[in-house]
Amino acid sequence: MKIDVSKPILELNDNIAADNRNLLDKHKVFVLDLMASPGSGKTSLILKTIESLRERYNIAVIEGDIASDVDSQRIKEQGIPAVQINTGGACHLESQMIKKALSVLELNKLDLIIIENVGNLVCPTDFYLGENDKVMILSVPEGHDKPLKYPGVFQASSAIILNKVDTMPVFNFNEREFRGSVSQLNPEAVIFPVSAKTGSGIELWSQWLSDRIEKARQSWG
Amino acid sequence: MKIDVSKPILELNDNIAADNRNLLDKHKVFVLDLMASPGSGKTSLILKTIESLRERYNIAVIEGDIASDVDSQRIKEQGIPAVQINTGGACHLESQMIKKALSVLELNKLDLIIIENVGNLVCPTDFYLGENDKVMILSVPEGHDKPLKYPGVFQASSAIILNKVDTMPVFNFNEREFRGSVSQLNPEAVIFPVSAKTGSGIELWSQWLSDRIEKARQSWG
Repeated sequence: MKIDVSKPILELNDNIAADNRNLLDKHKVFVLDLMASPGSGKTSLILKTIESLRERYNIAVIEGDIASDVDSQRIKEQGIPAVQINTGGACHLESQMIKKALSVLELNKLDLIIIENVGNLVCPTDFYLGENDKVMILSVPEGHDKPLKYPGVFQASSAIILNKVDTMPVFNFNEREFRGSVSQLNPEAVIFPVSAKTGSGIELWSQWLSDRIEKARQSWG
Repeated sequence: MKIDVSKPILELNDNIAADNRNLLDKHKVFVLDLMASPGSGKTSLILKTIESLRERYNIAVIEGDIASDVDSQRIKEQGIPAVQINTGGACHLESQMIKKALSVLELNKLDLIIIENVGNLVCPTDFYLGENDKVMILSVPEGHDKPLKYPGVFQASSAIILNKVDTMPVFNFNEREFRGSVSQLNPEAVIFPVSAKTGSGIELWSQWLSDRIEKARQSWG
């Protein structure tokens, strides 16, 4: 019932991702791969994270979209370097695309690159890009049952950002049930309830990211 | 930058989809392929559609999910036959999976099959399953800019359901901009603003679907 073409593609992808990682280690650049559904607030969350961390770190953004450059425009308006990748029809970023994006960024001037993956809770999960951490966003309107339906992305994420918590009263989002499902799938994952609109919770999330960057720096020496 | 494995897979898929279509024509069964992001309200919309059309048509549902059977359970509770397909990791349904699902349904007793595709705005677009129409749902919290970012799914859809319109006041959803983008991508597509929660707009949408079924029946003679 399934045609397995994934293995050779994933192997090729992982080899190039390892090259990306070597290059990033050399320049001591931390990379975050941010995954989420369409419309969960990825770009808004990135903008808030930049606001919170731009004094401490030099940041760049790689924007992955099927089409359009509206997201990278929003980032550039904040004076932050942004590379737009349009995947054509592809539902996820691959390491080869990131390799190309890295080649146009001034890595020796950067501390942190945030990759905004294509809006999709399935495909980006399996593709290692050379990142330090994968993190996902789930937004409250998507519903608390999503860990049951898309377990892979919840398992692949070091942290889970629960966005649009300001809309909790409008939706019947059962946070307790959500946390229960997540902890069954991925007991290590930290959950950050935030609102990229009001700014609530952004500080805690940014602190976690900053801690991860500092930990990577220690390993680089 | 892209590895093209899609062509042979799509050809194989289309051949089996054509077999599905022949079988469905023989039994005069109309099939709707419903596509949307995770959490846009696909199952709730299907339940409302069933409520509205069950007096007129015998309906069954094919539920596609990466994992879990919570959605097909909700359908079965309404006394409607439902087949659950768990794709494992796959981000879309393929015609071979539908073929298997059709083999366990009593086609001679059915008028309408609604397929709930995997929650994903990208991958389901390219896969013909043997359906009469592809229809998509966008929910208000996802934002009015989605046609720009996911043009393929908007182009593939005969109708576009704009769900969760009861939450318009909470989100800055610009309906005018949304309609403008849709009409540029797909001038033929009909847009149905609905709320699967309150029931608003469901009647107009159901009427459209009913018209499509009647039109197909005329072609079957």
